[in-house]
Amino acid sequence: MNFCCQCGHALVFEIPIGDDRPRHLCRQCDAIHYLNPRMIVGVLPYLDNKLLLCKRSIEPRYGLWTLPAGFLENGESSEQGALRESWEEARAKIRVDDLYAVYDIPQINQVYLLYRGELTDHNFGPGPESLEVELFSEREVPWNNMAFPVMTAVLKHYFNDCKLGHFGLHRGVIERKR
Amino acid sequence: MNFCCQCGHALVFEIPIGDDRPRHLCRQCDAIHYLNPRMIVGVLPYLDNKLLLCKRSIEPRYGLWTLPAGFLENGESSEQGALRESWEEARAKIRVDDLYAVYDIPQINQVYLLYRGELTDHNFGPGPESLEVELFSEREVPWNNMAFPVMTAVLKHYFNDCKLGHFGLHRGVIERKR
Repeated sequence: MNFCCQCGHALVFEIPIGDDRPRHLCRQCDAIHYLNPRMIVGVLPYLDNKLLLCKRSIEPRYGLWTLPAGFLENGESSEQGALRESWEEARAKIRVDDLYAVYDIPQINQVYLLYRGELTDHNFGPGPESLEVELFSEREVPWNNMAFPVMTAVLKHYFNDCKLGHFGLHRGVIERKR
Repeated sequence: MNFCCQCGHALVFEIPIGDDRPRHLCRQCDAIHYLNPRMIVGVLPYLDNKLLLCKRSIEPRYGLWTLPAGFLENGESSEQGALRESWEEARAKIRVDDLYAVYDIPQINQVYLLYRGELTDHNFGPGPESLEVELFSEREVPWNNMAFPVMTAVLKHYFNDCKLGHFGLHRGVIERKR
């Protein structure tokens, strides 16, 4: 961040008065430009003890598998965002049961909010960001070709909870190199 | 958002190729500047069936009461951020039990993540953003002088759960005028 997005002036990186950490400051218009973590919202779409996964057609992790998920947009709730991503990536329509996982990845300034929900039918397929979309049982999941460690962790919780017959909220922190 | 924070060039507001909504685009350096919701993290600090609230010494809602909470910062987990805010606003040290509430306020692009945790002792007091910090039973809460509807909603869930003896996760969407 080099220039003020309000007035175009060059920014400085200093601790504002009354703050405790450096921020990007504009000495021309006095704007303080905060940087905050972003949310990734998504769904664990299930049907008949199987989960729907998407094979990514975009970078990063092209060709690897993940749950439908993406950045929460302004103006939508986290559940609305999760359903939007399920439609965009997997053309999947879902009845949400509940929030299932909240995972922090502080090194890359992300928080994942993943919902659990049943597919309304078998009509699904790849959207523009997916190569393939498929239902997988625990045994069938491409465990060695998963795109993101957070998704692997959440899938393990899910299949374990299926055996227990109880779905609580799972929280965790994923440590990742910057 | 008027200028590119990378190169300082004037921005346009158009739908990028392959996207479905307008973004702030730089025609000079090709940067796309996304705007995403932010997270407010905080704690319901309890002791002896009472909750700790802070009387705000800053705008907005100067002089009104709220739970210790604030924007999640880059580089910290949501639980770390919640504990940091409890220290900054109420000089409170807390043992976190669990995540208690996830509330969306889509009209202002915010998601609240509130943890439930016990105060480690009676040593607390106002930080720089608080006028007063006090423990309140349900009857004592200043219900008519609460700063934010989301906090009122979560406090009601908390005191109800105290009677039930069970603390689940509460989710909700707060509708608010822009």
